[in-house]
Amino acid sequence: MEALKQRICREGKILPGNIIKVDGFLNHCVDTRFMGELAEEFARHFDVSKVTKILTAEASGIALAAVCSYKYGIPMVFAKKAKSDNIEGGLYKSEVMSYTYKKKVTLICAKDWITSDDKVLIIDDFMARGEAMHGLLDIVKQAGAELVGIGIAVEKGFQGGGDTLRSEGHDLYSLAIIDEADPETGFRFREV
Amino acid sequence: MEALKQRICREGKILPGNIIKVDGFLNHCVDTRFMGELAEEFARHFDVSKVTKILTAEASGIALAAVCSYKYGIPMVFAKKAKSDNIEGGLYKSEVMSYTYKKKVTLICAKDWITSDDKVLIIDDFMARGEAMHGLLDIVKQAGAELVGIGIAVEKGFQGGGDTLRSEGHDLYSLAIIDEADPETGFRFREV
Repeated sequence: MEALKQRICREGKILPGNIIKVDGFLNHCVDTRFMGELAEEFARHFDVSKVTKILTAEASGIALAAVCSYKYGIPMVFAKKAKSDNIEGGLYKSEVMSYTYKKKVTLICAKDWITSDDKVLIIDDFMARGEAMHGLLDIVKQAGAELVGIGIAVEKGFQGGGDTLRSEGHDLYSLAIIDEADPETGFRFREV
Repeated sequence: MEALKQRICREGKILPGNIIKVDGFLNHCVDTRFMGELAEEFARHFDVSKVTKILTAEASGIALAAVCSYKYGIPMVFAKKAKSDNIEGGLYKSEVMSYTYKKKVTLICAKDWITSDDKVLIIDDFMARGEAMHGLLDIVKQAGAELVGIGIAVEKGFQGGGDTLRSEGHDLYSLAIIDEADPETGFRFREV
């Protein structure tokens, strides 16, 4: 998606350790109107008319997923990290490694909100190694729900998570795939 | 807001320890179209035309705040919990007690995204003792920004956080104030 690539080039920062920051419009300060444009682009690729739930993981995926959910008129579920007292029994759980926080976290989702009747579109803001995504896929599988596809705003192509998912046969649609992020030469995007 | 009270009565659950669950439409599975109705109600109370940033705290406030942000055409900022490697220097920090997680957490917000030029509307899904809210107010103060007001979907009136904020002179608008939640007799709302 050209508008997203341009925005990444204009506002994105490349930090040591291959960290890419786009937190001025995507995942700290969020330009929700722009998220609406991303939502429209996802809807060109996926048949959202058959989707019954949008699924994401807290916290940074929620804003984009909420705008998609609002525009499509489909409820959104966000998997939570770790256990709070507000969630009683009946949970799907999946342990994932978070490279952002450098520790294992357990993604949880109440069984009430994703069932075998659901057709799920997973939406997330970012994907690198795809660890959190495998947790979400695990939840969809535990629920016996149907996966419609996976929509990602920014994929760090050079970290391989997306290619693994594609090789597994998933319909993964990333709006921008960054194949190289060099503090000197900037961003290089994959041609798709 | 009558529609919200009705929905709480119909779908809300009261658990031991004064825990109120409305996670089927507000903060786990999210009915974002309904969030749009809440956003419209907030816009009847607050003059959103002068607001430059919507501020909330991760994670459960993000969905509602994102829908408000999208509808008003105003960027949203969410304060994060604890430090991730993706946030370099230049942070506002405020330590708050989380009763949900029974531990202290530090709310952080990059200084880039709230400045003294901003007029901030704080939006959150829930308020009980108001601990997280004081963290958000602290961030607004540190930024030297102007606080336009505080919009809350569900206030647990009997836990006092809202009344404290009102006595401090804040323009706090809660769409439903629960003054009593009894597993036997159900919900009693404050008449406002």
